[in-house]
Amino acid sequence: MSLEKNVDFSIQKAEKSKIGSIDFENVKFGSVFTDHMLVCHYKDGAWGQVEIKPYGPMSFEPSMNVFHYGQAIFEGMKAYKDENDKVWLFRPRENWKRFNKSAERLAMPHIDETRFVDGLKALLQLDQDWVRKGEGNSLYIRPFMIGTHEGVVAGPSTEFMFCIILSPARTYYSGKVKVQIAEHYSRAANGGVGSTKCSGNYAGQFYPTKLAQEAGYQQVIWTDDTTHTKLEEAGTMNVFFRIGDTLITAPTSERILDGVTRKSLIAIAESKGIKVEVKSIVVQELLDAHAKGELKEIFGAGTAVTVGQIEGFAYQDKYYALPEVADADAYAIQLKTALQGIQQKRIEDTFDWTETI
Amino acid sequence: MSLEKNVDFSIQKAEKSKIGSIDFENVKFGSVFTDHMLVCHYKDGAWGQVEIKPYGPMSFEPSMNVFHYGQAIFEGMKAYKDENDKVWLFRPRENWKRFNKSAERLAMPHIDETRFVDGLKALLQLDQDWVRKGEGNSLYIRPFMIGTHEGVVAGPSTEFMFCIILSPARTYYSGKVKVQIAEHYSRAANGGVGSTKCSGNYAGQFYPTKLAQEAGYQQVIWTDDTTHTKLEEAGTMNVFFRIGDTLITAPTSERILDGVTRKSLIAIAESKGIKVEVKSIVVQELLDAHAKGELKEIFGAGTAVTVGQIEGFAYQDKYYALPEVADADAYAIQLKTALQGIQQKRIEDTFDWTETI
Ligand SMILES: Cc1ncc(COP(=O)(O)O)c(C=O)c1O
Ligand SMILES: Cc1ncc(COP(=O)(O)O)c(C=O)c1O
Repeated sequence: MSLEKNVDFSIQKAEKSKIGSIDFENVKFGSVFTDHMLVCHYKDGAWGQVEIKPYGPMSFEPSMNVFHYGQAIFEGMKAYKDENDKVWLFRPRENWKRFNKSAERLAMPHIDETRFVDGLKALLQLDQDWVRKGEGNSLYIRPFMIGTHEGVVAGPSTEFMFCIILSPARTYYSGKVKVQIAEHYSRAANGGVGSTKCSGNYAGQFYPTKLAQEAGYQQVIWTDDTTHTKLEEAGTMNVFFRIGDTLITAPTSERILDGVTRKSLIAIAESKGIKVEVKSIVVQELLDAHAKGELKEIFGAGTAVTVGQIEGFAYQDKYYALPEVADADAYAIQLKTALQGIQQKRIEDTFDWTETI
Repeated sequence: MSLEKNVDFSIQKAEKSKIGSIDFENVKFGSVFTDHMLVCHYKDGAWGQVEIKPYGPMSFEPSMNVFHYGQAIFEGMKAYKDENDKVWLFRPRENWKRFNKSAERLAMPHIDETRFVDGLKALLQLDQDWVRKGEGNSLYIRPFMIGTHEGVVAGPSTEFMFCIILSPARTYYSGKVKVQIAEHYSRAANGGVGSTKCSGNYAGQFYPTKLAQEAGYQQVIWTDDTTHTKLEEAGTMNVFFRIGDTLITAPTSERILDGVTRKSLIAIAESKGIKVEVKSIVVQELLDAHAKGELKEIFGAGTAVTVGQIEGFAYQDKYYALPEVADADAYAIQLKTALQGIQQKRIEDTFDWTETI
């Protein structure tokens, strides 16, 4: 791996690694960070040097743009280590492309592939001991960009910081979840920012999710904000429905994130001969299928959990349980196993999705 | 002014004031900050000490919540100095209440009136030399709250920082602006966060505003995201339409901010015998009124400019100019003069809106 020559690049190593103090078996998701981070500043219309340096706090003005006007976008991806201690990324250029789409919509600058992908690889090489092998182990990667210009004028920032931080993760089996279909609140507007990974989308979801949790449901299935009938996402994941033996998921739109997991699952399902329909699906179809006994599975799809099974949903104060499906018959499990197998290099990557650092 | 006894409170004065170096006549809005700021941290379910200390940078973790999940809300208000060097605030408790409404919707903690209003007054007492008297001079006040918890788990922060920073402002006559009616993009969803002052709302507006500006319009008139026909806000202001001699403004809703300027203008207009209709107004009504020569004025209302006159609007690639209205006949000017007169203590405040520090 080498950075393109035109990108200036510096590495300052941490004096001492923290790795010895980490209890990798019991690490809480997103709470511990590796020894290094990548930082790059945008100023006067251009990105500067890529700095890889010890992870740690930074100094910011209280007037800086992101605190007031919310220019902040991020990505979420994972690195895995195979049996030969080689570190692998899963479709990282998809995240890079999506990052730039988010940037565009949030009036932030694009970042080049070299700084994003090659910069990440350089960072991972330095912190590769933090990627642990064995099933369920991964290193969560969080690239993000924030508006850093000082001053409280409501307009786009002229200065930005791009940063990548890394956090060791363990996939634990969190159990199936109960969800509530959104009847009043929503996460995205037509012509809004729902298809981007901007920070504001998440802050807006917390309150309705809290209300759902107080009512006994772990997540919300988000619906379109106009009719509250179209089933669009589940929590911070894309969502799939299995009716009969057909897998249905909404088409991506301005309101729905174009998930890397979602499109990978669609490709895997199709390669296994599972019929996939990418189409808008409304609550009534779900209720009808449930009444006929045809609604077999619902699951969320996203980088953090890969596939998250749902055991039932609430709608208009009524709870609808899904049938028990044996693991061997569950699309959720079949697809999860296949996807994680590819990601973790246990099975052949016929899709050419993985790349080493 | 004194703080309630149960709020712990510390003041650390700046060693030297920066005030001598400020060119108050030419200061750019929101770019210069006073000597002090107010900072208060929320932790373990409670707000701590109110610290008033020198304005300056702070140290934050790159993993902190606001950079990733966007929990950030703010307020905007102004202080004025009268001829007797007394400093006045305009309806500050309305901002405090709205701040807490924003907090609720963004799953952030409420803050008490003592920390917000009395804290602000204590800060202003210290920096009162920064409030300059004379027409057009004011001190812009920016209270804000951000999620400061470290760690990239998509959920509400458990720690927060409340902060108030102050910036000297001069109202300059920026001229009338041309606006574009939003036909595709939108700032707010039904069931979303449009009625709050959360940072994410602003970041989402920048790109559509940039497109409007590239087409020759300074601002966007936002419409509902479902039909794109209801006229809801103008830029970051509420919006008023004068048809014949009636003033029309949309009712506040989940999509529209309950502006302090808006409601003050409604009260002033009514006290002057101007007919005000608070009702949803659609594009077609505007086009019809324009065709009949009855559309006389459009203006935005917000703390930053008080009243911002609009000279014409674009819709479906056609530009509609508004008639020239003499200042003496313009509701915009009459209302602006009355409101600024009250705010700056030049005319009697019969509404009891102003309070001293
Ligand atoms: C709102 C939302 N939808 C869907 C996803 C799934 O996207 P991906 O599969 O790329 O992680 C995410 C991120 O995980 C998300 O934040
Ligand atoms: C979106 C939006 N609408 C309207 C307003 C006007 O509110 P206020 O009059 O309280 O300043 C503001 C803030 O200035 C705003 O940000």
